[in-house]
Parts: sequence; C-alpha cells; structure tokens
Amino acid sequence: MRKIYALGPAGTYGHEAAELVRKFRPGMSDCQLEFCGSNEEILGRVEAADSADVFGVAPVENSTAGLVRAVIKFWMRQKDSWSQNRLQVIGEVGLPVHHCLLAYPGVKDVSAIQSVTSHPQALSQCDASLARLGLSIKEPTLSTAVAAQYVSDHGNSEAMVAIASEFAAKVYGLDILERHLEDENANETKFHLVGRQPTSEVAESKTAVLFWLRDEPAALHDAMGAIAAAKANMSSIHSIPLGERGKFAFYVEFQGHLGNDVTRSVLTIMKARTDRFVILGSFAELKGDR
Amino acid sequence: MRKIYALGPAGTYGHEAAELVRKFRPGMSDCQLEFCGSNEEILGRVEAADSADVFGVAPVENSTAGLVRAVIKFWMRQKDSWSQNRLQVIGEVGLPVHHCLLAYPGVKDVSAIQSVTSHPQALSQCDASLARLGLSIKEPTLSTAVAAQYVSDHGNSEAMVAIASEFAAKVYGLDILERHLEDENANETKFHLVGRQPTSEVAESKTAVLFWLRDEPAALHDAMGAIAAAKANMSSIHSIPLGERGKFAFYVEFQGHLGNDVTRSVLTIMKARTDRFVILGSFAELKGDR
Repeated sequence: MRKIYALGPAGTYGHEAAELVRKFRPGMSDCQLEFCGSNEEILGRVEAADSADVFGVAPVENSTAGLVRAVIKFWMRQKDSWSQNRLQVIGEVGLPVHHCLLAYPGVKDVSAIQSVTSHPQALSQCDASLARLGLSIKEPTLSTAVAAQYVSDHGNSEAMVAIASEFAAKVYGLDILERHLEDENANETKFHLVGRQPTSEVAESKTAVLFWLRDEPAALHDAMGAIAAAKANMSSIHSIPLGERGKFAFYVEFQGHLGNDVTRSVLTIMKARTDRFVILGSFAELKGDR
Repeated sequence: MRKIYALGPAGTYGHEAAELVRKFRPGMSDCQLEFCGSNEEILGRVEAADSADVFGVAPVENSTAGLVRAVIKFWMRQKDSWSQNRLQVIGEVGLPVHHCLLAYPGVKDVSAIQSVTSHPQALSQCDASLARLGLSIKEPTLSTAVAAQYVSDHGNSEAMVAIASEFAAKVYGLDILERHLEDENANETKFHLVGRQPTSEVAESKTAVLFWLRDEPAALHDAMGAIAAAKANMSSIHSIPLGERGKFAFYVEFQGHLGNDVTRSVLTIMKARTDRFVILGSFAELKGDR
C-alpha cells in the first residue's frame, strides 16, 4: 500500500498539496494519506521508510517569505549522492495562498463579530481587510488550519471568525464570508513531492541543487558559471546565510534533468567549483487542467 | 532636536538596536526616541521628515529567516539616486537573538507553571527547551515584547511565563529564569540606521544595492561580474522572488564605499547590466567594546 505524508491537522496547505499529488501523479490516487506534526517529521519518515512506495509532501519556498528553512536544513544534512533510488525530490506542486474569511455555518449577524483567529502571518497579511471589516480583536494560532478547526469546534458559542484557505473551509464545513482577504497580490507556496522513484525527463524538467560557496572573492560567479555557459534558465535562486558573516550556501533550480548529458556536465562543474554540493533531484510541476 | 524612530512597544529588538545607535554613533546620545507601530511606518516617517536630524532603525535581515520583506519592499520603491542627501542607509547594528524565559518577580513555584507566551516563531525556536521545562500550554502573541509586557501587566494572577530578550526583561522588570532557550545556535538580526547624513569611508565600509535581473540566461552572472572583477568580498546576498516565476531581484552588500572610484565603477557597470538598480547606501557596523 502506497503512503503519503503531509502536514496536519487536516486543512493545511500541505494537505491540499498532497490531494493534488494524488489527483495528478499517475498511480497515486489510492495512496494512503497520513498527517505529521511538522515538516521535519514528514521528511524523516520518508527517509526512514526507505521504500519506493512511501512519499512525502513538504513546502520548499513561498514567493513572499522565501525558503522554508526547516525543509532546506533537512536537505543540507543529506550526503551528495547521484544514485537512482536515493531520497530525492520527484515532483512539484504550486499552491496560490488566498486567505478567506470563514465562519461557523448559520452565523446570523456577522457584522457584530469583532474577533478573528489565524496564524500571525495571515493576520498581518490581511491588515487592511480586517480594519475595514471591524475585526479588531486578533487571536493568533499556530496555523491557519488550527484556526479553522477552532471555529468549527466552538460553533456559535464564541463570536469568532477564522482566516484560512478555501480548502480548510471545505474540510471543516465552514462558510466562506469573503475571499482574497490579503492586502497584496496573492503569494504562492511551492511544495516538493519527495520519494525514491526518480521522475523521467520531460521538456519542463528542472534540477534543484544546494551548494556551499567557497570563502573567496568571485566564488558565486565561479559556482554559477556552468549554468550561465549552458544558457540554462534558473527558476529559483536563494542564498542561505550560514550564521557566520559572509558565508553562504545557495539553493538553485535550473532547467535540465540529471539524466541529460549537458545537465550532468553542469552539475559536475558546479560540484568542482564549490565547497559542498547536494543534488535534491530532477522533477517537473505536477498539474492538471486547473 | 535629533529624533530616532524604532519599532514599539518598548522592549523590541528594534528598541535595543536604537539604544546601541545612541550609544555608539557620535552625536546621537541625546537623540529623542519615538516608537512606531511597524517598520514601514519608521521608514515612511524618516522619509517624510526630510531632515538630517531625523533617523530610523529598521531590521533588514535575520541570519535564519532571511530578508525582512516589508523593509526591502520600501527600498524597492525608492528611485535610483546617487545624491548626497537622499534617504539612505548610514549604519548597521547586529543583534544576537537570544531567547530568555521571563517570569514576574517573586513567582515562587516556577515548576507549577505550564503556560508560556511569545511570538510563534520564538515558541517554535525553543521547542525542545519548552518540552524539557514542561511548558506545554503555548499562547502566541504578536511579538516577544508584547509577551513580556503581558506577563508584566498581569503579574502573578496568571501562572504564565514569557519568551523574550534580556533587554525586554530589563524594560518590563521581569526575572530571567533561564537564558539561551533556543534549540539551535543563536541567530542574529541586522538593523540598518537610516537617515540623510552620509557616513564617511572607513576600512570596513560596505555598500548595499538592490537590482532587478534581466530576463535572460546568465543574467545573474552578468550582473555580478563587476563585483567579481573587483575582487570585492560580499557580506550578504539574497534573492527576492518577484512573484512571477523565474523573475528575481537581488539584495547584495559588498566591500567598498560610494565615495571610492573602484566601488563607483562597480556600481556603474552593475547598473548597466541590470533592469533596475537602487543604491541603499555605504556604511559600516556601529559597535563599541561589547
């Protein structure tokens, strides 16, 4: 029986991403979903299972907040391995983050409600909307899914609404009072599908790597030279400060597949021009006609 | 009368950074401190004041969490100007983030306390310590300073401790029960001193810039070429996703001063090789003998 791990409780963006994997990746529809308490736990369980039938879904970057540090740290601890069945990234799911205002079904006088609960980041992303709606009492929670769960659990006894996703509204049977509550354009969170079954090359394949810059002038220029020489487009680049000033690792995604000679040559040169090097995997975005 | 803006309420890391500016930057000791509700407000007030006597302190990057997006967004909206008295970064303060466990003075039986309040990020950074201490009930707040203020305001009536800085403990008169609560090595937050009085060149001077990559292969390689050619060390580099996939701006700090011919030449080439370019300023770290 295939199994896929995602972040709980039900209704998180990670849960939604796992549902999209089950829908769009061939052979995954009957995959059993299991929730974990943290992203580190998801990755740790997939690694420990050591099976081609065990998968995980973990966020890697948000278009506003940047890299998900705990997930990147997990990959930073991995050894450099080019073997076929190592733990690797085998797919990507992009989820737009749209905040909705959710209420317990049947709430009559919404205008009388003053309290709103959500993760502090979501609350701050909706500042202007909350001011307009007169929702001045803000109750922070540990995730948007927990906020939706709270409103669902407490029913009408507490006059409180939650900020969470449309998916969370479905999971907890809440009414959507308003959509697109965020003050700025929506951000997007990219999730990685992780497992031990490599994905074949397609036109949109990209390869994700982590590397540690040498401590010398022009080190970044040298490390990226092979990508520039191959004229491969980068779809993502993030610096990762290593604590000590001026010391950096980098997360880079660029066009190409580990099974392709040019890509493999770019990787070989990058590895030779950096202090440490880890290949996360070659993969493409999973999507249907949504 | 000189004035300096920092993030409130009293006891934030921004407040602590402003106190260090008053201590270490010549002529700033009698500067009047005023609190703002957000980092955007700090920068907006300094910009609007249009005076050489008005300063602001705003966080720019954290060694773990990366760039402070709201602050960078402010700079991204600025015009490219090389004029002497434009709004610019004129100093830097680095603050190590050490989480302390704070209690209302005179609490007798600390082992009976189960509740802890702080910002969710601080709570999650102290997970292992909180488990060890049996602090299982976590009450999220909007900042660590607000958590310290809460414990101070509510005294012994609520059996609750806060996670906040040593500085916050002093500000609110709380007892420090334990230091270095964080699970991992301490992270550091860098603050910028912002104003309209340029800082003269010293050996440690560095220059901060923002630039928008051209949408073509090897664009980053081209943009960074002049820094590599000048063999200037970079002390910071961060990519800034622009929402659209594969489109990035960059924040870079490198060795040099705008008043120096070589640095000015590097900047001139970078500007010519990028889509858009903003110089934040040339500055050095403010520090005493601490």
